Formats: sequence, C-alpha cells, structure tokens
Amino acid sequence: MPIASGSPLRTVYWVGGLDGCCELIDQTLLPGEFKLLQIRDIETMWEAIRVLRVRGAPAIGVAAGFGLVLGVRSVRGTMDEFLAAVKKASDYLASSRPTAVNLFWALDRVARVAAENRSLPVEQLKARLLAEANAIRDEDAAMCRAIGANGKSLITAGCGVLTHCNAGGLATAEFGTALAPMFAAHAAGVPFRVFADETRPLLQGARLTAWELMQAGIDVTLITDSTAGMVMRQGKVNLAIVGADRIAANGDTANKIGTYSVALLARAHNIPFYVAAPSSTFDLTIPDGSGIPIEERGAEEVTNGFGRGGSRTAPEGVKVFAPAFDVTPHDLIAAIITERGVIQPVNEATVRKAMGAKQH
Amino acid sequence: MPIASGSPLRTVYWVGGLDGCCELIDQTLLPGEFKLLQIRDIETMWEAIRVLRVRGAPAIGVAAGFGLVLGVRSVRGTMDEFLAAVKKASDYLASSRPTAVNLFWALDRVARVAAENRSLPVEQLKARLLAEANAIRDEDAAMCRAIGANGKSLITAGCGVLTHCNAGGLATAEFGTALAPMFAAHAAGVPFRVFADETRPLLQGARLTAWELMQAGIDVTLITDSTAGMVMRQGKVNLAIVGADRIAANGDTANKIGTYSVALLARAHNIPFYVAAPSSTFDLTIPDGSGIPIEERGAEEVTNGFGRGGSRTAPEGVKVFAPAFDVTPHDLIAAIITERGVIQPVNEATVRKAMGAKQH
Repeated sequence: MPIASGSPLRTVYWVGGLDGCCELIDQTLLPGEFKLLQIRDIETMWEAIRVLRVRGAPAIGVAAGFGLVLGVRSVRGTMDEFLAAVKKASDYLASSRPTAVNLFWALDRVARVAAENRSLPVEQLKARLLAEANAIRDEDAAMCRAIGANGKSLITAGCGVLTHCNAGGLATAEFGTALAPMFAAHAAGVPFRVFADETRPLLQGARLTAWELMQAGIDVTLITDSTAGMVMRQGKVNLAIVGADRIAANGDTANKIGTYSVALLARAHNIPFYVAAPSSTFDLTIPDGSGIPIEERGAEEVTNGFGRGGSRTAPEGVKVFAPAFDVTPHDLIAAIITERGVIQPVNEATVRKAMGAKQH
Repeated sequence: MPIASGSPLRTVYWVGGLDGCCELIDQTLLPGEFKLLQIRDIETMWEAIRVLRVRGAPAIGVAAGFGLVLGVRSVRGTMDEFLAAVKKASDYLASSRPTAVNLFWALDRVARVAAENRSLPVEQLKARLLAEANAIRDEDAAMCRAIGANGKSLITAGCGVLTHCNAGGLATAEFGTALAPMFAAHAAGVPFRVFADETRPLLQGARLTAWELMQAGIDVTLITDSTAGMVMRQGKVNLAIVGADRIAANGDTANKIGTYSVALLARAHNIPFYVAAPSSTFDLTIPDGSGIPIEERGAEEVTNGFGRGGSRTAPEGVKVFAPAFDVTPHDLIAAIITERGVIQPVNEATVRKAMGAKQH
C-alpha cells in the first residue's frame, strides 16, 4: 500500500494556489489500487462525481466546491460575465448526481460568495471562491474531528466494535463519522478491534471500511453481514457504531440496508448501538422514520456479481427486493454522536434540544 | 428453463436396469444452465461428488450408492473377487469428500448387502445392490415427503415465508427438507410467497433456492441477508423455515452461518422460527450446541467475488472470520419438523422422546 500507515486519509483537497489542482482518491479502484487523481478542469470533476470516484455526501460537497473553482478560474471579462460563468459551472456540476443534497448546498455556498462580493476585482474574487471551497473542506474535516472527540470515550481498551457499511474518511473530507471515534481512540493509543460487515450488495464494508482501517493500522476483521449475530454471541463485540443518511426529529435513523438488523442483534445481546452523524444529517421536518423515503435499487446489484460487470449468480427473471436503506427506530439507539455533542437518550425532546440552533 | 414448472425436481436417480445409468443435475452450472449428467462409470461419479456437481449430505449419500453399483457392475469372477471389488470401489468413493457422513453411511449400507448375500450368484447380487441403492434414494425422497406433509399446515393462504441457504430438493434426492413444506403447500393449492436470503458467502439462496422455487412455480423474492430484518418489520414475513446440519440433544441447531441472526430477528418480530430436518440430523451424543464443531472456511470465499474465480473485493491481507455454520439455541426454535412428526416445544425432553427409537 502506497500511503503511510497511521497518517490520516485525505479524500479530497486542494493543492497550491488558484493555479493548483484538486487531488482526490479514486475510490472506484479501491481496494485493489490506491491512486490520487489530479483534477485540473471542471469536466474531469463532473465525471469523477458521476462515476463515484468520489462518493459519500460530505465528500461530494467538498469536490463540487473545488469543481466550481476549476470551472471559473480561467474566465476573463466583466464581473457580469464572470457571475454568469459561475452560474453555468454550478448548473453543470449540479447535473452530475441529481440527488446528493450536499452537492447543491456546496455549490450554492460558493456561488453566494461570488454574488455577495461582486465589488471585488474578478481575480481577487476567484481567490475568495477558492478560500470558500477550502473552508467547506476544512469545516467538514473539523466536524468529523469533533465527532471523533465526542465519541472517543465509548471505545475502551480491549473492546470490540462492529460497524456496517462505510461512514469513514472516504465518505467525508477526512476522518469520517462512524469511524471517527475509532480513529480518535487509535490515535490516543487505545487498543481495540473492529468487525466490519462486508455490507451487501455493494460491499462498501469490504472494499472501503476494511481498507481504511487497515491503512490506519487499526485491527479489523471482515465478516459477512450474517456473521454479526454470531460474533456478538461470542462476546467479541462490545458496541456497534454506524453512520446515518437521514435522521428524523424523533431520532429514527435511515442508514444502509442491514443497519436495522445490526441494531436488533445488538439489543438481543445487550450491546449498545450508536449512530455517528453531523447535524446536517438531521431532518426535523420529518417527525419519524416512517416519513423517510427509502430508495429501491436495481436487482442487478444483487443478482450480478458485485453490481458492475459481475457474473450472474441468481436465476434470470428472479424477483428481487433491494432497498438501499432501512430505518432503525430511535429506541434501539443508545446515543447519537454529533459534532455538537452526544444525544442520549434518543427521543424527540433530546434531538430537538440538541439541534435547536438549526431550527427555523 | 428446460424443465416443467410444477414437476418435482429429481436431483439424483437411476435410469433403467443394471446396464442403465445414474442421472443427476449438475449443480455447478446452476442457475445459469440446467444440465442432466448421465453417469456411467465410478470415476465420473467420484469427480461429480468431489467438485460438488451433487451436494447436500442426503444427495451425496444417494449418489455414492449408485456410484458403488457403477463400480462393480462389470466385475466378473468369483464371489471373493466380487466382494474385493465392492470394498475397493467403496474405499475409492469414500475418498471423494472426507467429511460427509451420509457418504460413508450409504456406502456401508450397500456393501453390507453384498456381504450378507454372498450365497447369491454374482449377477443376482449386482441386481440386489442396485435395488439397495434405489431404496436409499426412495427412502430419502419419502423422508422429505413426510417432512413436507408434517410441515404443510404451517403455511397458510397469503402468508410470507422466509428461508436461509438451500435445504431444498437439490440437497436431497428430491423435495428437500426446509423447502418440503413449501412444495407440499403449493401442491395443495395454498397461495403464499417466499423470501429467500441470498446466503453469503456462497449464495446458495440466490443460486439454488430461488431457482428451485421458481421451477416449482412458487412466488419467490430474493433478498440480501441483511434485508431480512426490514421485510419482517414490514409485516411481509409470517414464519421462517430453515434446514439443519446437526441438532444437539437439547434441540440447539447448527445450520448455515446467518441462521442464528434470522432466528433472533424472527423473535424480535414475534415471528415463529422453524427447523425442518430428518431424524438422521440429530446427534444425541452432543448435549447442547456448544459441543457442535463449527467449520471455518477460507477467507477467499468472502474476499474474492463468489469464491471461485471472482475478482477480489477486499484488501489484500485483510483478516476474515468466516464460520460455515452458527448455532441457534433451542429456545429460539418454535418447532422442529421431522419425518416422524413435529417436535414442539423444543427441549431435551421432547427431542429425546421424539428420537427415542434412535437411542441405544
């Protein structure tokens, strides 16, 4: 492996000044190959987001901010012409992945800086846009560090931690959400081991989580999803930590399919089950989990090898039910670890109190 | 698909007289291709067992019985020479899969018929051996039919059934164990639907169970193992039925990895969880599940596509924990369906009573 064990993994970042470039890890090549891409134009960034070279909502947002800078840094002309170019570049990047909320949020944020600073000379404004894109990255990294600091004490010497899917550094600018407490505990010298569910159908646990933890020098064992119950029964697991895709006002949490099963298995073995997520994951307009829309995925992710180009391993024409997410009821969640602190117990009152500053 | 929907699937059987052949379904080609092999010599049968063209303990036993007939049917000479040939053929077939108990049991049974009938002319004795091999097949089929009859009433109109791995006709002479109640209910015109766990790592649920049920015209939906909890919560599943590899005296049951998780998830949703298995699966010399040895499989079944020739989807050198089986405690099992009747509730007293005739 070409990167140093123990060093934090930086998923997407800017190198140099306005004439520099964005570097990101090509996640489509992991875990077989670690390759840093130098991205110098907006079309290449659009493609990188489109084909999931960069994935995970926070990481996509960071990449989009840098992409917008790449799209306008060579523009010459009047301020009106420059702002039109910003609009055009933003619309173009927004078309790369139509459903990723952080993508639109990051593009809007950079574009707003342009609109609000039109009195500056164009070249100075370009530098401000790059500064804003860097700020998005730095804030994301700081948010992950704060989650790590807030969750670190859950991981004690000798314990076993189970996680599902990948809510690691590769899904964020760096450090991750569910994995952040693990990285923080490891940095503090706490010895522990992790069991990583492989996470069918797309194997983010096998391909990404196991790889990230190995890179950091953390003791990780890969298991099939259906082995989680057995390792819990064997006493090898003391807590479970997962990420979240959306959290309702009462704490019900949507995350990768299989998370609900992990929470139930943890409950059956009296193992605390934690969710780690930034405040941006909370959607207080949704009262409970029944209101969270659940995306269904294509059957071929289950029936054809590992989704892309794999050989068929199920009968032609078989019916498949392939939800991307499931919902874990709040009463199965011991606590939610956020960058603002730990929500415990998890219910509507504690969630609304913790997220109070976000409400309108 | 080349075989008629609704007709019972015959996994391994004899065609014609002593000069006939054994036909079996080549399971290594499923579900992509349905191919019946005509096996006319012992070497081809040895290879078929070795490379899992025929798999499942009962089906292997049946195949071995026919293989022994193939190995000696052309032998000429004295009775002593013939019995020596039986011994040699039996030893040879026993080397195909060293751990399958039914294999040795079936070979011993056919060889014993030879030893006990040495007063017959050799040609007549050959016919007796074929009759014994056919009897093994017929008894296995009858045992499966009896399990189906005993479990049929559990499946009611409109219900949803979840199963894990493949304990179907392909693992037996025909009809299966866990799937037998489903085939019986379907034959009786009961409408119901099945959710088949794909069953990582080797995907017996996707490759075999889904295929078998589709062949029979039964409504089946394939899910990843970690989707079981969600379909239970959605109210789509009313009962779970699985097979067994070994059952201890108190009813603790070893079966494919993930079975224990299914049982726990079923308990959490108040869904009855059933085991279907013949009396030969009970091992009353083992007091409880802690005494059942659990085979660990090679890491590559998890890390490399689907075990054979798949591309690598986990980091090189990653630690993997890959038990082939887990143990479900008897108190999670609503009933065990056997060919002798239904054991309910499941505990040492009821198991020993039901299996009384088997004890020494």
